[in-house]
Amino acid sequence: MNYNLSDNIKNMKPSAIREIFKSLGTPGAISFAAGNPSPESFPVEDITRIANKILAENASASLQYGTTEGFMPLRELVTKRIADKFDCAKDGDMTIITSGGQQGIELFCKVMCNRGDVVVCENPSFIGALNAFRSIGAVPVGVPLEDDGINLEILEEVLKTNDKVKFLYLIPTFQNPAGITTSLEKRKAVYALAQKYDVMILEDNPYGELRFAGENVPTYKSMDTDGRVMYCGSFSKILSAGMRVGFVCGNETVVQKMVVAKQVEDVHTNQFFQMIVAGFMQECDMDAHIAKINALYKHKATLMIAALEKYMPKEVKFTRPEGGLFLWCTLPEGVSLDDFMKESIAQKVFVVTGKAFNCDESAPSDSFRLNYSMPSDEEIDKGIKILGEIIAGLIEKAK
Amino acid sequence: MNYNLSDNIKNMKPSAIREIFKSLGTPGAISFAAGNPSPESFPVEDITRIANKILAENASASLQYGTTEGFMPLRELVTKRIADKFDCAKDGDMTIITSGGQQGIELFCKVMCNRGDVVVCENPSFIGALNAFRSIGAVPVGVPLEDDGINLEILEEVLKTNDKVKFLYLIPTFQNPAGITTSLEKRKAVYALAQKYDVMILEDNPYGELRFAGENVPTYKSMDTDGRVMYCGSFSKILSAGMRVGFVCGNETVVQKMVVAKQVEDVHTNQFFQMIVAGFMQECDMDAHIAKINALYKHKATLMIAALEKYMPKEVKFTRPEGGLFLWCTLPEGVSLDDFMKESIAQKVFVVTGKAFNCDESAPSDSFRLNYSMPSDEEIDKGIKILGEIIAGLIEKAK
Repeated sequence: MNYNLSDNIKNMKPSAIREIFKSLGTPGAISFAAGNPSPESFPVEDITRIANKILAENASASLQYGTTEGFMPLRELVTKRIADKFDCAKDGDMTIITSGGQQGIELFCKVMCNRGDVVVCENPSFIGALNAFRSIGAVPVGVPLEDDGINLEILEEVLKTNDKVKFLYLIPTFQNPAGITTSLEKRKAVYALAQKYDVMILEDNPYGELRFAGENVPTYKSMDTDGRVMYCGSFSKILSAGMRVGFVCGNETVVQKMVVAKQVEDVHTNQFFQMIVAGFMQECDMDAHIAKINALYKHKATLMIAALEKYMPKEVKFTRPEGGLFLWCTLPEGVSLDDFMKESIAQKVFVVTGKAFNCDESAPSDSFRLNYSMPSDEEIDKGIKILGEIIAGLIEKAK
Repeated sequence: MNYNLSDNIKNMKPSAIREIFKSLGTPGAISFAAGNPSPESFPVEDITRIANKILAENASASLQYGTTEGFMPLRELVTKRIADKFDCAKDGDMTIITSGGQQGIELFCKVMCNRGDVVVCENPSFIGALNAFRSIGAVPVGVPLEDDGINLEILEEVLKTNDKVKFLYLIPTFQNPAGITTSLEKRKAVYALAQKYDVMILEDNPYGELRFAGENVPTYKSMDTDGRVMYCGSFSKILSAGMRVGFVCGNETVVQKMVVAKQVEDVHTNQFFQMIVAGFMQECDMDAHIAKINALYKHKATLMIAALEKYMPKEVKFTRPEGGLFLWCTLPEGVSLDDFMKESIAQKVFVVTGKAFNCDESAPSDSFRLNYSMPSDEEIDKGIKILGEIIAGLIEKAK
């Protein structure tokens, strides 16, 4: 039969990143393409102990339906942690547990946007969020991301001229894909613009705990005096990505509607793993655990930056993240990203094309994303060397 | 600030059932309101053993990101089981693992429907599905459910006069809420009508394995000669509801779009529990496990029917399900459902009002849903006695 699919979905394609994920098994391949946390970051012993305790003492509750809002002890622990660490959770706010940070982003957009509404994003931005917006019929409009955050002049121009804007989607800390952290000054200016043009902010902070250098910068949520900021976080990068446990904290009116939307999506998040996370937060030292992850990622990022300095032609630019999982490389003028991608795939070193992160899917790009959390030390050195040689060859050819 | 919510979500309310779920803790309360499986149905020992095996042998994979389509061994095991048991899985079909059956329903609607499109449903029907359709802007249109399935004349009338119909949503076996199983004759006629008017069928079969009396009736999917039927199932009622693992099997073109839609909702379903289910299907005797559940539910249903026969005024009608979790009671003429609901809540015996299952939210009802999987034997006897007395009193008053 002829399948007459919905307008929102019919032209959507699978995320380039998730598709790459499938081909990572190629023998001899080196992947800098993943967004995965290092498996070394999973506290397997603690999870095993807590899992057995739950199954011995509380099996029925852990395997039975739960409430859509989430497991109450976990909601309370999350709210306390983000209040203590990031000055989130304001009067009138409420925390919902979501099936990963991804679901929080999607639910908020579903609750806010009609088809044709606009979400203003940093450009480049997280492809999972961009596709979530598209799947609801919302239109991501990109504002260039600079070294210290979004371009304020262009942001104001978009807000001034576009009356369909429902919210700003921002990843202010260790941005995916660019690894950039927005400065405090810019955060204050962005918040002021959101007030001036009366739009909401969805602050996505899945990497906020993963700081291995520099000083914490206050969150947008910490500046939120009028219930404008929804704060979205995740345990994917600090406990387990596969368990799919994240959260959103924000104004109760909005979160209650997200509860209704979540009810019809998956009823609630896996109950057993909500109890595992709560157990971990109660019994284990989360800060010490995260400090170990950050020591690992600092080591990996330092290695990758050293390799980039050693092997990349000097015309190649790259960011130097203070945390998170990613850095962003920009090719010199005259070198084609398509040529580079073709050659890197041929040589089995996988990166993600910058095009995947463009708000405007037809726009060109001169950049690519590198992940340092997954590859081994040897792979980082070897893979960056290969990429450096490819780019050197392309520069030579362009002369 | 003023929250300008989306048209699809702003008027939606939480599901009456999920809300009742929160007040089940009231001391002395008897609940026939839940849709929960009995905790006795959870194979806790097997799950504990398999969980420890996964954590010992395969922890990294179980806690890491997985593919959106689902854990491949589980997809294969599910496909084989539904092919063997229900003659599902046709050439050109594909199976996706979803976060509960609920997500399968929601994703299919999202992939098919624009705002204003129509989904034809049995009336009454499963509130979780009706709300999923509403959340996407689709309009559930109800066709009366009779003792042997949907009313064929009215179904054809709707299909003939409404060009916005995208699919039929049907729960042919042990229907929720009514406990009715559609006859083979009606299934054939419904399938023929779907062909004649070229609409798809979403066959929701979360209770299909829970047959404790009578003979299996062939699924819609088994009759599917032209890729018209999407078959949706779940492990919620046979292994664990809280883990949120379900599946959809249907035409690959459609399922691939559901994969794209799922990617932006939750990336994938909890990986660890996908591995638990696969482990259970490989290592344990699923049929023997389900036979135990069915023996329990047969006992509970028999008790409830006996109590209804003993305590209900003869004017009260009720269904006699051959499986599943629910039966459906209809009040005699002249007795107000609102009065009955008020009094039953006052006496702390919880049922779900028939209104919750109406496609037209403003329509009246004269019925309510009873669940027999959760209450104890004593609660069934005591609670039905109380409900019988309430109705007898209301009949007396109406004279």
